[in-house]
Amino acid sequence: MERRVSALPRTLAAEVRPQQGEIRLAGSVHTVRTLGGVAFLILRDRSGTIQVVAPGALDLPREAIVEITGTARGDPRAPGGVEVAATGITVLSQPAGPLPLDVSKPVLHAALETALDHRALSLRHPRSAAIFRIASALTGGFRRALAAEGFTEIHTSKLVGSATEGGAGLFRVEYPDRPAYLAQSPQLYKQICVGAFERVFEIGPVFRNEPHETTRHLNEYTSLDVEAAYLDLDALLDLETRVLGAMLKEVAGTATSALNQLGVKAPAIGRIARLRLEEARARLASRGKRYAPEDDLDPAGERLLGEVLAEEGHEFVFVTHYPAAARPFYAAPDPDDRALTLSFDLLFRGIEVTTGGMRIHDLALLQENMQRFGLDPAAFTGYLEAFACAMPPHGGFAIGLERLTAQLVGAPNLRWATLFPRDRRRLDP
Amino acid sequence: MERRVSALPRTLAAEVRPQQGEIRLAGSVHTVRTLGGVAFLILRDRSGTIQVVAPGALDLPREAIVEITGTARGDPRAPGGVEVAATGITVLSQPAGPLPLDVSKPVLHAALETALDHRALSLRHPRSAAIFRIASALTGGFRRALAAEGFTEIHTSKLVGSATEGGAGLFRVEYPDRPAYLAQSPQLYKQICVGAFERVFEIGPVFRNEPHETTRHLNEYTSLDVEAAYLDLDALLDLETRVLGAMLKEVAGTATSALNQLGVKAPAIGRIARLRLEEARARLASRGKRYAPEDDLDPAGERLLGEVLAEEGHEFVFVTHYPAAARPFYAAPDPDDRALTLSFDLLFRGIEVTTGGMRIHDLALLQENMQRFGLDPAAFTGYLEAFACAMPPHGGFAIGLERLTAQLVGAPNLRWATLFPRDRRRLDP
Repeated sequence: MERRVSALPRTLAAEVRPQQGEIRLAGSVHTVRTLGGVAFLILRDRSGTIQVVAPGALDLPREAIVEITGTARGDPRAPGGVEVAATGITVLSQPAGPLPLDVSKPVLHAALETALDHRALSLRHPRSAAIFRIASALTGGFRRALAAEGFTEIHTSKLVGSATEGGAGLFRVEYPDRPAYLAQSPQLYKQICVGAFERVFEIGPVFRNEPHETTRHLNEYTSLDVEAAYLDLDALLDLETRVLGAMLKEVAGTATSALNQLGVKAPAIGRIARLRLEEARARLASRGKRYAPEDDLDPAGERLLGEVLAEEGHEFVFVTHYPAAARPFYAAPDPDDRALTLSFDLLFRGIEVTTGGMRIHDLALLQENMQRFGLDPAAFTGYLEAFACAMPPHGGFAIGLERLTAQLVGAPNLRWATLFPRDRRRLDP
Repeated sequence: MERRVSALPRTLAAEVRPQQGEIRLAGSVHTVRTLGGVAFLILRDRSGTIQVVAPGALDLPREAIVEITGTARGDPRAPGGVEVAATGITVLSQPAGPLPLDVSKPVLHAALETALDHRALSLRHPRSAAIFRIASALTGGFRRALAAEGFTEIHTSKLVGSATEGGAGLFRVEYPDRPAYLAQSPQLYKQICVGAFERVFEIGPVFRNEPHETTRHLNEYTSLDVEAAYLDLDALLDLETRVLGAMLKEVAGTATSALNQLGVKAPAIGRIARLRLEEARARLASRGKRYAPEDDLDPAGERLLGEVLAEEGHEFVFVTHYPAAARPFYAAPDPDDRALTLSFDLLFRGIEVTTGGMRIHDLALLQENMQRFGLDPAAFTGYLEAFACAMPPHGGFAIGLERLTAQLVGAPNLRWATLFPRDRRRLDP
């Protein structure tokens, strides 16, 4: 290729318009076929695809990386009504052999396990990539909303010195001279930070040594954590409503082509329905599903509740006031009924995507509760010191990014919405 | 306190203006003293501090959490020229006993180890908190700049199945039925993702089992990772220049009070000086410091180079073209001299804050290089598949958030710029 031509700025597939003059494209060969002595190449880049035509046959395998110069012209037969007549094609890189998957079909015809085994390739399928562009917009909206409300982004340690949140489900790490563990959540750290910054958020990995394999659990996932002082449960639910609204708005505004690719919409968030757990149970009982008063909802109950609410036009619902026995030691009791907590789950289309609530901020009450939960205060020295130095009333929540994304795009297993899922069987790639 | 009053919206300390009428504040008691029968309380919240005056003595310990109603008035004797005459003070929470540190003095008089032992309290010192508000603005600017250039935010697994980047320095995790490790960087994953998204970034923890304790190494830190396709080394340095410029602009624009608190400025970024390593060595040799041609710069050399460049008005410098022996197996060789790589470090005031470079995108060359480095390709199956399916030319870099923050605020040890540092001795809090 001539230097004059390659010095052109790169045009993205989605930016190609008729009569632009000479342009330069770069991307992957999505498909190529020859018809009546003319080669039709679909070029794929991060913005989408564009048809390129060249005289004669093109001996190019799918996924080859090419740089193309040419001129854009309108053609009603071309996808999108525009195509590029190539004047030069330079191959930058070629696949080494046959591809393990075909990512050129409108839908990826591969079982989940096969798609994950060949993640480097399956991620290139436009519908796979779209899922993660949506996840990226979700985190973008999350940050933008919280930064606008004066939140400080924090990064707390994932290596922790004690099995503070209960030994089961923890991963142990070989650390010099002592055991260490991987944090199951940044909960205790974000509370400590509320004492210094009032409003904090963190986006980071959390680790759970899950004994079972389900479609909605993984050993590692991305948690969007929020914690804030000087609010009550209602204000906390208002905060999550605003944040979630901003996240979905960011998806609708910046990941439009990804949504179209998947044929899904980002729901607009108005006021999210709020149901006390006892009301939710009453609704479920009227549908024949009964729970004991101390029980949490099980996945089947959450699904059924999702169906009930969907009939009333609600895709999201806050379920509040869970029993103390079903929540962690730091959950604030409801002053009106101390068997309950000022806690909530957020269900989205019948699956829990957030858990949160008000926290205990009084040291004596916290210590009493730890005793009730059989926890050793000695393992919590750094955490308890925050309360010994006085803490403001506070609460917070955590959104599971992969779960939220999977629900939004309608994926049947959250592994489709996880770049490199980790479970008991899978550590590679 | 009366309900009418507490229903007032909360005013932040920094927002108090004379003649606002009745306002409500909430925050921590920073200091309190009585003078001539009048109590002077300095209230601290996330925005700063404000003087509150009340008749009589106030029996309130420092760090107590209070809600205050009152009226604001101008007073030239008050810090900032404005104070609040309290009409009501409600105590929401009290410290349980004597505080282990005094966070009310202009400078925290505590050794690093003491400050870290009592992190819940030391973080509340306005100068400590300011460091992390600056870090938060840095990550905010990082994301904003990259999102504007079409980058997708990714979250790659920290649990990995093989000791791919060399066994030394890796943490081993007890995983069901097999060993697992903590990722030393998202390098291989972000490259795989470039094959699908072209432009990616990740903000997340990385883990290094450091054998030594230094002022600039930790066992866990926050890495700001970038990887992009279809660029060359010059364009990559341009990209980091733009990103860094946006980060420092975000600090200057949104963390102004934190900068003032610490008495530092966020430098404006114009063009960053670029020096080939051999030129850097020549500069150092002229100052009496000599290196063998295959050697990397040592910390003393980086510091001296920082001094030399500072004399010429440069706080930042890109040092490029490191020898292949000093860089990882995936570093792209310089086509003009294959003993060198198209790699770089970014030094900021004499300390490396970024490492990056162009990567090998050709499968055969990559395999050849792995052999040269004594690496087993079988441990890299998922990574190599990306190249077997053809990869575009690409490069990237990683910024150490805590190091950059520490350099920016002039902290002598990056632990001051780390919320909960982890090293061989410290896993708590």
